[in-house]
Amino acid sequence: MSLQYRGRHFLNSLDFAPAELRTLVEVALRMKRGAERGHLPGRILALLFFNASVRTRVSCETAMARLGGNAIALTPGRDTWNFEDQDGVVMDQNAQEHVRELSPVVTSMVDAVGIRKCDLITVGDAKTSVTDSYAELKKDSFIHAFARFSKKPVLNLESNAAHPLQHLADMATLVEKLGEPRGKKYVLSWAWHPKSLPVATPHSQMLAAADLGMDVTILHPPGYDLDADYVGAATQRARQLGGNVTVTHDVEAAYKDAKAVCVKSWGSLQYYGRFDEEVAAKKALRSTWICDESKMARTADGIFMHCLPARRNVVVTDGVLDSKRSVVVDQAENRLWTVMALLKELIGG
Amino acid sequence: MSLQYRGRHFLNSLDFAPAELRTLVEVALRMKRGAERGHLPGRILALLFFNASVRTRVSCETAMARLGGNAIALTPGRDTWNFEDQDGVVMDQNAQEHVRELSPVVTSMVDAVGIRKCDLITVGDAKTSVTDSYAELKKDSFIHAFARFSKKPVLNLESNAAHPLQHLADMATLVEKLGEPRGKKYVLSWAWHPKSLPVATPHSQMLAAADLGMDVTILHPPGYDLDADYVGAATQRARQLGGNVTVTHDVEAAYKDAKAVCVKSWGSLQYYGRFDEEVAAKKALRSTWICDESKMARTADGIFMHCLPARRNVVVTDGVLDSKRSVVVDQAENRLWTVMALLKELIGG
Amino acid sequence: MSLQYRGRHFLNSLDFAPAELRTLVEVALRMKRGAERGHLPGRILALLFFNASVRTRVSCETAMARLGGNAIALTPGRDTWNFEDQDGVVMDQNAQEHVRELSPVVTSMVDAVGIRKCDLITVGDAKTSVTDSYAELKKDSFIHAFARFSKKPVLNLESNAAHPLQHLADMATLVEKLGEPRGKKYVLSWAWHPKSLPVATPHSQMLAAADLGMDVTILHPPGYDLDADYVGAATQRARQLGGNVTVTHDVEAAYKDAKAVCVKSWGSLQYYGRFDEEVAAKKALRSTWICDESKMARTADGIFMHCLPARRNVVVTDGVLDSKRSVVVDQAENRLWTVMALLKELIGG
Repeated sequence: MSLQYRGRHFLNSLDFAPAELRTLVEVALRMKRGAERGHLPGRILALLFFNASVRTRVSCETAMARLGGNAIALTPGRDTWNFEDQDGVVMDQNAQEHVRELSPVVTSMVDAVGIRKCDLITVGDAKTSVTDSYAELKKDSFIHAFARFSKKPVLNLESNAAHPLQHLADMATLVEKLGEPRGKKYVLSWAWHPKSLPVATPHSQMLAAADLGMDVTILHPPGYDLDADYVGAATQRARQLGGNVTVTHDVEAAYKDAKAVCVKSWGSLQYYGRFDEEVAAKKALRSTWICDESKMARTADGIFMHCLPARRNVVVTDGVLDSKRSVVVDQAENRLWTVMALLKELIGG
Repeated sequence: MSLQYRGRHFLNSLDFAPAELRTLVEVALRMKRGAERGHLPGRILALLFFNASVRTRVSCETAMARLGGNAIALTPGRDTWNFEDQDGVVMDQNAQEHVRELSPVVTSMVDAVGIRKCDLITVGDAKTSVTDSYAELKKDSFIHAFARFSKKPVLNLESNAAHPLQHLADMATLVEKLGEPRGKKYVLSWAWHPKSLPVATPHSQMLAAADLGMDVTILHPPGYDLDADYVGAATQRARQLGGNVTVTHDVEAAYKDAKAVCVKSWGSLQYYGRFDEEVAAKKALRSTWICDESKMARTADGIFMHCLPARRNVVVTDGVLDSKRSVVVDQAENRLWTVMALLKELIGG
Repeated sequence: MSLQYRGRHFLNSLDFAPAELRTLVEVALRMKRGAERGHLPGRILALLFFNASVRTRVSCETAMARLGGNAIALTPGRDTWNFEDQDGVVMDQNAQEHVRELSPVVTSMVDAVGIRKCDLITVGDAKTSVTDSYAELKKDSFIHAFARFSKKPVLNLESNAAHPLQHLADMATLVEKLGEPRGKKYVLSWAWHPKSLPVATPHSQMLAAADLGMDVTILHPPGYDLDADYVGAATQRARQLGGNVTVTHDVEAAYKDAKAVCVKSWGSLQYYGRFDEEVAAKKALRSTWICDESKMARTADGIFMHCLPARRNVVVTDGVLDSKRSVVVDQAENRLWTVMALLKELIGG
C-alpha cells in the first residue's frame, strides 16, 4: 500500500475521498479473512474517553493488541486533570491543563490518540448538562484543538458532529452483505428514544451509504432534519458515484424495496440545550417511530443495521433484532477490522 | 494436553469434574515451577468488573501479559452503558444495551470474557442496595445470559453463588502445602464482619477441599448455613474421593486436629435484602467468631488460609496472619498460576 | 551496566547518590537517541494511582509497552478495596485490606509497583479534605509500608514529600538543553495558584539542579519555605559538586542571568490542613508571582521549565509558554525516557 494515509488525522470522514475510505474498507475485509496482516509492535494508541463506550473501546484496544501494540485508555477528569481548549483563557477555574501542552506531550510519547468527546452522551438515564446550541457544539473544539497541536495522528471516536469509525464499519458491512452496494436502496430511519442522542452517528451512517453510491433515503419526522452541511455533502458524494440522497417523512414509502435499513435515534437540532422540552414535544412520535417486523416486511428482504447499543422494544423490536435480517453483530465486529486497517495505514507497519 | 477444556465456559466449578479441576491445578503448579509454559500472543481477555477487585484483576491481567496476550478491563455503567439481561423488556429506563447484543459483539472481538458481578460486594463501608432474596440472586442472571449468547469462553470472576477461580487457587494451595490432601482435616470457619458478605467464596472454598477428598468441617453459628445445594454437592463429591463434609457450630471441636483452617465471613442467607437487621442480630457473635492464636493452637500445626482481603483484628488477629502458619500470600499468588493454566486450556496455545 | 540498581526501591531520590541519578539520566538520553535499548517481555508494572495523572500514567504505561511488557493501572478505592497502612488497627471501619497483605500479594504477581499517593492533589477545583499537618503527611506512610512488605521494586510516582521521577526528567532536560549544567544558574520560582499544591515536585526539582552541581536559587514569598530537610540535603549535594543553594524573596535579582527558570506553585507548609485560610492570606501575591515575559527577559536567554500541568495566565503567561524559551514539552517527554531507563535498571533486561 502507498503511504497516502500515513500520519493523517481521522477526524471526519469528509476529509477523505470516498475512494480512500473504500480502500480502507477493502484492507479491513482482507484482514478479516486473513489475507492481510498488520504489525505495530511496541506502538501505543492513547484513548481519551470523555464518554462511555463498548464497541469503540474494545475494538480499539483489541486492534492494537492484535497488531502487537498496546492501548492506554484514560477518562479525562477522572484519571486525569480537567482540560481547556480555548485560547487566551486565564485558567483560574476548573480546568488545569491546556490542550496546547496536553496534545504535544501525550503525542511525544505515543503513536496515535483516539478521542471520544460528545457532549450529548450519558450513561443510563442520566441527563446531559449541555446548554449550548448545536451550532456551537458542532465545532468540536476540543478534538480540533488537540489535532492542531498534535505530533501524531488523532482519531475521532465520536464527537458532536461525526463518528467516522462508524462510517468505515458501516461501509464494510454494506459491502460484505450486499455485494456491490452501488445504486441499491438504503434507508436511514429515525426512531423514538427517551433521550436526545447526538447526530454524529447518523451523519456518518448516511455518509457511509452515500460514499458507496447508494440510493440513500433519510426518513424522519418533521423537525428532525440532520445538519444540512452533512446532508449536502452526502448528496454531492453520492451523486458522484451515481447514487442520491433524499429526505422523507413517509415511513411506508421509505421502507419499500430497501436493501438495507439502518435505524438510529437522534435529538432535534432545534432543541439542543433544551432537552426537557424535546421530551414533551416528541411524545406522540413513540408509537410510529419504532422499527418492527411489519415495516421490515416492506423491504426487499433488506438487512437491518444499528450502530448499537439498541434499546430493545423502544427503537427496534425483539422480533427484528433477533431475526435473520439483523446484521448488527457483524456490523459491530466490523468496527474491529476497520479500525485495525485504519491504524495500520495511519501509523504504519 | 487434550482439548477437553477448549472453548468451555468456567461459570461454576460444579460444571467440571473434580478430576478435571485437579488436572488444571497440576498444570498451574507445573507453570509455577517453570516446567510448563503457555503462549497466547495477540489473544485478548475482556474483563467486566461490576465490583472492585485486587487479586482477580491483577492475576487475570498478569496472566494474559505473561502468556503474551492482553487484557481489557472495563467497569460496566462507568466505562460502558448500563446493561439488561432479562428477555422481552421494553428498554425505556436505565438500561441501554442488552446482553443479547453485548455478548456476541464483545466476543466477536476478544478471545474470552471474565465477569465479576456479585451484588453484595461494596467498597469500604458503603452499603449494598440489594433488596432481592438469595433465591433470586443465586440465579446470577447476567453472567448466565452473557454465556448463553457468547461466542467465546466466559469466566466467572465471582458471582452471587460461586467464585470458581478461588476454588482452583485454594485447591492448588492445599496440594502445595499439605502434599496429598486426601483424607486430611480442613475447616472452613465463619467469622464476624461488619458487613454481610456473599457466599460465593465460601461455597467455592468448601468445594475446593471437597474436590480433593478432604475431611471437610464447615463451622458457623446457627443461622449461617451455606446454600444446601452447594453443601450437598460438596458432600457428594467429597465422598466419591473418600472424604466427607460435616457441619458444626462447635468452635473448639472444629479446630481440633485440623491440617488447614480457612476463615471467611458471609452473610446469613435468611437476611439477604434485610442487611441492616442482620447487623443487629449478629452483634453478640463478634467476640467468639474471630480466628485467633488460641484457636489455631488447637490445630495439628494447621495452615491458615483466607481468600483476602482480610480485615485484621476483626476476622483474624494480627498474630495469626503474621505467623508462619499463615499461607495467605502464597494462596493469593496461586490465583495467578491457576488462572494462567485455565486460560491456556480454555482458549488454547 | 552493572547490577547496582537491580531490585532497589525508587521512593526518594535522596536514597540515590547524585552520580547514580546522573548515570540513569545518561542511560535515558542514550535510549532517547536510539543508542541503547531495553527488553522486558512479559514483565508487568502495576500502577496504583490514588490521584489523577497525565504524564506519569502515559509515560509509565508507554515505557512498559515499548520495553515489550505491560502495565496495569488501578485506582485504589474505586477499582479496588480501601487500604490500611497502620499497624495494629482493628479494621472494622472503612479500610478492607492491609498493606501487609496487599503488598506481598501484588508483588508476587508483578515485577514492580508504582504508587502515586499525594494527599493534596485534586482534580479541577475540588478541595482536598486533608486535615493533617505537613509533619504528618511527609511521612508518606502508605508507600513506605508498601515498600516494607514488597517483594519487588516500588517506584514513587509522587508522594507528599517527593516526586523522584520528576527529578530524573528535569536532570535529563537540564543536561539536554544546557550542555554540562554544572555551575550554571538555575531558579526555582514559586507562583500564585488558586489551590495549595504539594511540595513534592519543587523538592525534587530543586534536587535535580542541585545534583547537577548548579547554582540553585529558590525564589518564593516569605512563608513559603520548602522543607528545611530537603533544602539542607540539596545544599549539601550541590556543594559537593561545586554548586550551591540559596533562598531569596527578591524576584528581580533571582531571574537575573538565569540559564534555567523552573516555575512551580506550592502550598505554605504552615497552612497544611487549613487551606481555606491560605487562600485569603495569599491573595495579594497573585499579581507579582506569575512568570511573564518581562521576568524571563532578565535571564541569560534562560530556558523555561514547568512540570505541567500549568494553569495558563495564572502561573505563567501564554507569552512565556508559547515562546521558544519554553522547553516544557521536551521536559515532559523526558519523563518517558527516564522512567524507561529506570525500569530497565531496576527490574532488568
